[in-house]
Amino acid sequence: MFNRILNNFARHVTLDQDEADYALSLLKYKNVKKHTMLLRNGETCRKIYFVTKGCLRLYYTDKEGKDHIISFMPENWWAVDIASFYSQKPATYNIEALEDSEVFELTYQDQEKLYEKVPKFERFFRILTQNGFILYQRRIIQNLSQTAEERYEKFRRRYPKLEHRIAQKHVAAYIGVTPVFVSVLRRRR
Amino acid sequence: MFNRILNNFARHVTLDQDEADYALSLLKYKNVKKHTMLLRNGETCRKIYFVTKGCLRLYYTDKEGKDHIISFMPENWWAVDIASFYSQKPATYNIEALEDSEVFELTYQDQEKLYEKVPKFERFFRILTQNGFILYQRRIIQNLSQTAEERYEKFRRRYPKLEHRIAQKHVAAYIGVTPVFVSVLRRRR
Repeated sequence: MFNRILNNFARHVTLDQDEADYALSLLKYKNVKKHTMLLRNGETCRKIYFVTKGCLRLYYTDKEGKDHIISFMPENWWAVDIASFYSQKPATYNIEALEDSEVFELTYQDQEKLYEKVPKFERFFRILTQNGFILYQRRIIQNLSQTAEERYEKFRRRYPKLEHRIAQKHVAAYIGVTPVFVSVLRRRR
Repeated sequence: MFNRILNNFARHVTLDQDEADYALSLLKYKNVKKHTMLLRNGETCRKIYFVTKGCLRLYYTDKEGKDHIISFMPENWWAVDIASFYSQKPATYNIEALEDSEVFELTYQDQEKLYEKVPKFERFFRILTQNGFILYQRRIIQNLSQTAEERYEKFRRRYPKLEHRIAQKHVAAYIGVTPVFVSVLRRRR
């Protein structure tokens, strides 16, 4: 049950047994049914999620009611509205489960405790935040400068096989095209 | 000379004398003439800059050759293409001095040394990265959902008095309107 998240920690920091145990003691395991909203725009994001099974999406709904998906979070991804979580102010984004999922959650307060007791996690979450930033920045630039075909290819490379697990409309809301155009892109390959 | 940057560190971490001395020993002080390019799109961003005097801009040039300013960095701001710096891959953005400026620079390698010797800087740069992320995310959302008037007001609040120091075209490239429209916005106030 803890293997995935311990492996995830090990990508950036080396923990001894006590440190790992303490971190795990702060995590709460949760089963999340498909379509559950883990965060709604306007609420404060009080938890950061690590996905051990299933898939979440982080998305923004514009004034016209159209969804824009910033990121999918399948297994081994972290999900959070970073701006809301670290400022503890209302969220811009929504987080929803696209499949029956299993996650670990860590509250803002428990993360602060973790930093205090195991400073190595400053490094871990610094790197995670950097990577999130890099991803986010690339997404913005992609939308400004790449064709729909290129964005579709990037999606397929970033999330291998995910397109067979999620609805076409979600692929469309990630690439920034209509669902019909996703079919066109698929047929063109 | 070191006051500004020591005060900046003190916002997020408490350093003892040795730690502060070590950090300062890694910094290089630099006079930068107006119009100097500190980073060009396509180069790797090898340094992070702290501005002690003057003002820099971080911007993106689109396929039509139009500039989009992500951020101004007057005194007490840090300037870096985060994605390029932390991945040590080619930059998306450019960094240019808008005034004769004075900066401290810290190389990627020296920052790694700093993390190793003074782990408190993991915390410092984690918080800096978070804040950069929050700012960046707000900028994107603003551009999607706010009017030019609202964006102009945000600019004036974020950078008090800066509009009297920089060219109107740069204000325009930050807000996302034409320079002529900036005049209109100014007269309307």
